[in-house]
This record gives sequence, structure tokens and C-alpha cells, in this order.
Amino acid sequence: MNLKLEKHLNIAPEVAKALAEGKAVVALESTIIAHGMPYPKNVETAREVEDLIRAQGAVPATIAVLDGVIRIGLDEAALEKLGKADNVAKLSRRDLPLIVAQKGDGATTVAATMICAAMAGISVFATGGIGGVHRGAENDFDISADLEELAKTPVAVVCAGAKSILDLPKTLEFLETRGVPVVGYQTDKFPAFYCRDSGLDAPLTADTATEIAGMLAVQQDLGYQGGAVIANPIPESHAMDRAEMDGVIASALGSATKDGIFGKAITPYLLGKIVELTKGRSLESNIALVKNNAVLAANIAKDLSTLG
Amino acid sequence: MNLKLEKHLNIAPEVAKALAEGKAVVALESTIIAHGMPYPKNVETAREVEDLIRAQGAVPATIAVLDGVIRIGLDEAALEKLGKADNVAKLSRRDLPLIVAQKGDGATTVAATMICAAMAGISVFATGGIGGVHRGAENDFDISADLEELAKTPVAVVCAGAKSILDLPKTLEFLETRGVPVVGYQTDKFPAFYCRDSGLDAPLTADTATEIAGMLAVQQDLGYQGGAVIANPIPESHAMDRAEMDGVIASALGSATKDGIFGKAITPYLLGKIVELTKGRSLESNIALVKNNAVLAANIAKDLSTLG
Amino acid sequence: MNLKLEKHLNIAPEVAKALAEGKAVVALESTIIAHGMPYPKNVETAREVEDLIRAQGAVPATIAVLDGVIRIGLDEAALEKLGKADNVAKLSRRDLPLIVAQKGDGATTVAATMICAAMAGISVFATGGIGGVHRGAENDFDISADLEELAKTPVAVVCAGAKSILDLPKTLEFLETRGVPVVGYQTDKFPAFYCRDSGLDAPLTADTATEIAGMLAVQQDLGYQGGAVIANPIPESHAMDRAEMDGVIASALGSATKDGIFGKAITPYLLGKIVELTKGRSLESNIALVKNNAVLAANIAKDLSTLG
Ligand SMILES: [Mn+2]
Ligand SMILES: [Mn+2]
Ligand SMILES: [Mn+2]
Repeated sequence: MNLKLEKHLNIAPEVAKALAEGKAVVALESTIIAHGMPYPKNVETAREVEDLIRAQGAVPATIAVLDGVIRIGLDEAALEKLGKADNVAKLSRRDLPLIVAQKGDGATTVAATMICAAMAGISVFATGGIGGVHRGAENDFDISADLEELAKTPVAVVCAGAKSILDLPKTLEFLETRGVPVVGYQTDKFPAFYCRDSGLDAPLTADTATEIAGMLAVQQDLGYQGGAVIANPIPESHAMDRAEMDGVIASALGSATKDGIFGKAITPYLLGKIVELTKGRSLESNIALVKNNAVLAANIAKDLSTLG
Repeated sequence: MNLKLEKHLNIAPEVAKALAEGKAVVALESTIIAHGMPYPKNVETAREVEDLIRAQGAVPATIAVLDGVIRIGLDEAALEKLGKADNVAKLSRRDLPLIVAQKGDGATTVAATMICAAMAGISVFATGGIGGVHRGAENDFDISADLEELAKTPVAVVCAGAKSILDLPKTLEFLETRGVPVVGYQTDKFPAFYCRDSGLDAPLTADTATEIAGMLAVQQDLGYQGGAVIANPIPESHAMDRAEMDGVIASALGSATKDGIFGKAITPYLLGKIVELTKGRSLESNIALVKNNAVLAANIAKDLSTLG
Repeated sequence: MNLKLEKHLNIAPEVAKALAEGKAVVALESTIIAHGMPYPKNVETAREVEDLIRAQGAVPATIAVLDGVIRIGLDEAALEKLGKADNVAKLSRRDLPLIVAQKGDGATTVAATMICAAMAGISVFATGGIGGVHRGAENDFDISADLEELAKTPVAVVCAGAKSILDLPKTLEFLETRGVPVVGYQTDKFPAFYCRDSGLDAPLTADTATEIAGMLAVQQDLGYQGGAVIANPIPESHAMDRAEMDGVIASALGSATKDGIFGKAITPYLLGKIVELTKGRSLESNIALVKNNAVLAANIAKDLSTLG
């Protein structure tokens, strides 16, 4: 790592040791901590996810920006600060350099976590779901920066697909045009976060973590630009039925129209409605799928570390 | 070439020798062999195209993935295997790493051929036509990964433009936004595969292979990201009339609507209808234009090899 | 700089000296000279803008292609030639390599100026406004190559936002998806060229040149891909009222429909109508905002040179 980069990164000792020894490391994002759940549930869950990764024999590296320093792996104090603060910026690619220059605090989205992971030399990252093409994007061009990042930065994102409040067919088209491998893990369907099956085909399929690690090793060998989406369906035990979820989303979209919600306000409104209409089951499902992804990511990272 | 890359590439002796000596090499794709024509016509045509390139004093390098190895230049056995197999995957950027990891077989599209050619150090590639923005892409975002690859990978693609079943005005806009040079060879019109003139202007024009090689040399000198489209109109002798072709496509689109074909199924349906409606003339035209492009590509590659 | 690149670049002595000494340099584009204003007003204005940059203690580097050479800094003769010629090509990314190979002349747009500036090692560039997503782009895909360049090339573009004949909400969405920082200078609104406020929020805000230089230094340290938009509102003294400007544009759009103008012809038509409807005030405003941007760019470049 060059000196100019190094001065902006703080790599936790546990992570630095694993990287130096070529051991398995799994990156984790921090918007779920800062913006996705209330305190102290957010910090508890973050610790549980980290411990699950350790239990698999890999090292977790939760990523955030604190006092302008890019932190790769958060200690207890950092995690508490992030979990309790109520004015932490949400950082995507465009936001990261200014917050670092301003010595501010920020939680990293999928895009920004990928960037920071790549800087630290981490190639596998577990999260809930990726951003995508928003419904109506054919008219307002609202497309998540996560998708561009996947085409640019060599980090595999293990997720449960993307939420079906997004336009999933367009999201898959965008990823195809950009050349991003989207691999269904033990499924030939693209999962839709709360549901195991979006009704759309997964463009690629792999049955084992070893097979996925093999693909990532080839990407590295070939100097491939960009990462990969590893789409891991939510565990059956916590999955919602697709027809039910379609109904919930249709109902939420109907309320949005009735309440005159549009543009940027739509996504948080819909997410709120989903929590309400599913009576909190969606939060439990969310935690379950993140843990499920953390375990798969740890196993992929372990296999990859033996192939390096 | 680094060792990690090298272990996935197999460069045929004829090609390796030419590259080592700085001689002219022309890449060729393999989807036309595996998916574009029936056996043995496909293998015969592939050999004829290769021989045409040799007759110009350049070396052909047909590209495919066999048993997980990226082959740059196919021997007799490889070509036969590819020509006869009926379950060869069609590889674009997103598909290549997994098929290599799985030790599978695949035929390379324009995008994947560009990637493999660049890995081997080949800068000129001849094919029939490039992919593009599909009709209706403003609603379904269906845009070929070939276009993104052209913005990324430093390989010049010599083609007869793009088929007019695509949305050609949008295709040219996309290439302009992405900064890809689109050069009409001896024409100021963008050709439309079977027709010499799509009715749209070619953004740039060059009259000789030497002039095109000069542009490619400048791109290399400047470290330019991305390749170029060299748009070479189909020979007059095999060209179809634009009005006739517009009629054929309108009729094919009408049948598609009547037969309830849409989405992904549209393109193969339209291509089939065109063969039917042109009573096979389209296949002859296709072969003629590929050969025409191979000759031009060989001459560009030869001129470029003297400028290196 | 490598030898192959060097043979295509001619860096003026004043600029070369400043770069060698790590002093502040500001790039300037040349389409405003060749295509934006009549002679001799164009050459006079170019000199005034350069002198303003020198008065701030930085060195101006106006960029153009003359006789196939990329000129970084224009002497008197070059500026006169560019200002008087009436057949100078307008160069974007796709056009540059061929014009260099053909030993032709060309004026550089925002995209091409960024490319040439980056080649010479210049990181700050002042202009009037950036290109954007055109109105109607959801149907015709007409999107300026400037936006892609901002996502690719590490040069900060100091501008007065973008003209509101463009679709500004889509322009900001596109830049967000591509991860480009868009920083309002002393404003939390995105400016619209002639107007200080487009009605849209600036995604980021900075109050001082030093803060902006700090962000650019972080981008460099992190090896960030892409540049930044520094959006500097037109000085109050020359600003037009947003309601007035909206009226002017609505009227110009109405005339375009009535006169049957569409497609590529729309933008020049609208710009002509705006000059006509504002009775030439728009040209004065244009000059005032370019000068304002030059001064800010010089100050950012100076601060950045102390951070290197
Ligand atoms: Mn968005
Ligand atoms: Mn497609
Ligand atoms: Mn345009």
C-alpha cells in the first residue's frame, strides 16, 4: 500500500494481521448500523454478525469513516459511536473524499464499502442487499451507484439479491450491460431480499463456496475490472412468500400515490410501509439474511485464501 | 504477460510467434462458429476467413474457451469441437470467469473476444457486427455489453456496423457518450450490416487502412481507455437495399407482435424471420461481410505493426 | 511522462516550468474560443481569462489541437489561429485520436480538455458550464460525453453548473450513479449557468477553496477514479432571475416546436434563441461567469499545490 493512501486508512490489528498472513477477511458495511436499525439493536447485531464470521474461521472488517479516517475494522468505541450518533452521513462514492477531507464521520453504503475494502486488499464483502435501478428510472434516471461500483471495483458482494421495491428486471439488464457476474448460490433464480425467488433467472449459478471462490480467483488472475454479485437467497425459515410480498409492495405503492409521495421520498416511504405492513417481520428477516450472507462470505473468503 | 494470467491462456504457436515478432495479428470471435451457422458450414467459413487473413500477410487468432482454457488461435481439433458441439455457452464479460473456473467450454461474443484479445496483446479484431442498444431499451434497458466493452478495452472492432433490428440512433448516442470512436471506412454513413447505409451519419471517416492504423497508434500512445468501431460497409455485390431491409424488419416486427413475442425472445425471433423473409440471402451476405472485414482488419493490423 | 505520450504533447514553457516546480496550473478549454464567440472578442476574452489566473498567482494552460499536436498552453499565434479559423473541429473523447493522427486542428470540449489536462498532469480546469443529460434523453439517449469523462478522468472542473436547457435533475442523477462529487461552492443549491440556483440541491457543499483543494488531495491520495464538478454560481451582478430564465427557455422551446426543430438541431437553436430573447445579456453573463470560475480555479489550484 502506498504512503499517500496509508495515511487515510486505519486497519484494525485483527484485520491487519489476517491480511498480512493471507488469511480470510470479510468486509461489512456500516449504513445498516448507522441508518438501518435503532440502538442498541444495531450494535448488538453488528457484533453477532462479526462473531459469526469469526466462528467460520475468517476475520470481519466493518468499514466506516470516523474523524476523517477510513476505518477497516471497528473497535468497541467506534461501533458504539456509530450506533448512537444520529447525524452520521451516508457515504457513497461521490461523498467519501469530502468527508475524509472535512475529518467527518460517515457510514459506508455498498459502493463506498467496496471502495474501502479494495483499498485495504479485501475481496469479499457481506451485506443485506445491493442497490439497483429504481422503479421509474426510465423517466428519472435514479440508479444506485452500487451498480456502477460493481462494474469498477474488484470486490465480491454477497447479498440476498435486491429489494423488489426496485425494478429488478432493469437492475439485471444494467448489470449485464456492465459485465458484472451475478451468481445465484444454490439457485437458478435471482433472489429478492425477503423472498427467495424474484421470478427472474439468475444469470449464473454456483453450488458451492469453493466454486464461487474459484471464479473470484480467475477474476483476480485475469486482472478483471469490477466485482461480482453473489446472490444468496434468504433462509427458508425467514423467507416471505413472493405473492404476499408483491401484495405488500403494491399496497405500499398505492399508499404512496394516495399520500402524494414521489421522487427521492419514495424509497424510505416504501421501506417504512413494508415494516408496518409486515408488522416488523421484515426486520427479523433482514437480520436473518445478513447473518446468512456473512457465513457464506466467510466460507468464500476462506476458500479464496487457499487459492491466492 | 504475468504468470497468473498466463496460466489461463493458451496461445497457438502461429499466433505466439507473430506476437513475439511484432507482426500483424487479427482476432476473430467464435459465437459465429458455435451459434451463428450450422456444421460444417461454420467450420469451413471459419477456415476461409482465417486463410483470407493469412493471404493478406497477417495471422488469425480465433478465440474461444475450451476446457476452461482461453484459447487464442484454434487448431483443427478445437475448431471441430466448437463447430459440432450443441451446448457451448455464449460468453460475454460477465460469463467468462465462471466458465474458466468450471473448466467449461464457451464461444466468445464481441465483448469477451475483445477482453481475451487485449489479454494476449492483440489490438485488431474482425467480426460481422457489434451488439447495440435494443429497440425498446428506453423501457427495458436492454443494451449489449459489447458497447460498454468498446469504452473499456483497447481493441479496434472491424465490423459492418450493427443490425438494424437494433435501435441504431440510440446505439450511436451511447457510443458518443462513452467516447468510442466510430469510423466509417470510405463512407460518411454508418452501415447497417446487410445494408451499406443506415441513413445515419458515421461520426468519423477514414479513407485508408493506414489512416485507421494511425488513429489506433495514437490511442495506444496516449494510453487511451477503450477501443474503436471500424465500420466497413458490406460489399456492394452482397448488399441489400435499405428500403427492402426496412420492409423485411417491419414485417418481422409485425409478426412478432402478432405471435406475442417480446423481451429476450425478440432478437432470435427477428433474426430467424429475416433469414426466412430474405430466403437465405442474409446468410450469404453475412459471410461476405465477415470476409470483407477480415481483409480490412488484416490490412489495419499490418499497418499498425509498422507504427508500433 | 512516457516518450510515446510526449511526442503528441507540446507544453508551453510557462506551463512546463510551473508543472516542474509543482506550482498551480489551471487548464482552460478552447471550444469557447473557436465556437463560442466571434473574433476578436473570443481571443480578447481568452487573454483576459488567462491574465486573471496569472493575477491570482497560477499559470493558465489553454488546451487545443493544432497540426495534430496537443497544445497545453497557447502562444499568441496559436490563439489567433484558433480564434480566426472557421473550420476547426469540435473535439470530444471520441474525436481526439483521429484528429491527432490526421495532423488536424481542433478545439477541445470539457471532456477532451479533461483528457489532455490529465495527460499533462494538470488537475484543475475552469470553464463555463458542463454538458449534461439533454431534455428528452429518456427517449433519444442524448447524454454529453462530459459526464462520462467526469467519472473517469481525475480533473476537477470548476463551472457555473449546467445550462437549464438541459435536463438538470437527470444530469445530477447520472453524476450520482457514476460517483462524481458535485460540490456547490458557498451554496447548497446546484447553479444553472445564468442563474445562481437551479432549484435543485447541490449534493455537497464547501465554503472555501482550501476545503475543495482538500477534497481533491484526498481523491489523489486514494487513487480515486474520476474528477469532480465544482459548481460556482454566477456572480450576483450578472445573474439572471430563475423565473425569467425559465420563461425564456419555455419560449425558446415553444419556438422550436413551432419551427419544427428537433434532435441534434435543438441545442444550437435554443442557445441562439436565448441570446436573442435576452438581447445579448446572456453573452455578458457568460463571460462574467467564466472569469469568476477562473479565479476560483486558480485559488483551488494554489491550495492544492501546497498539499501535494
Ligand atoms: Mn439514487
Ligand atoms: Mn441484452
Ligand atoms: Mn450528444
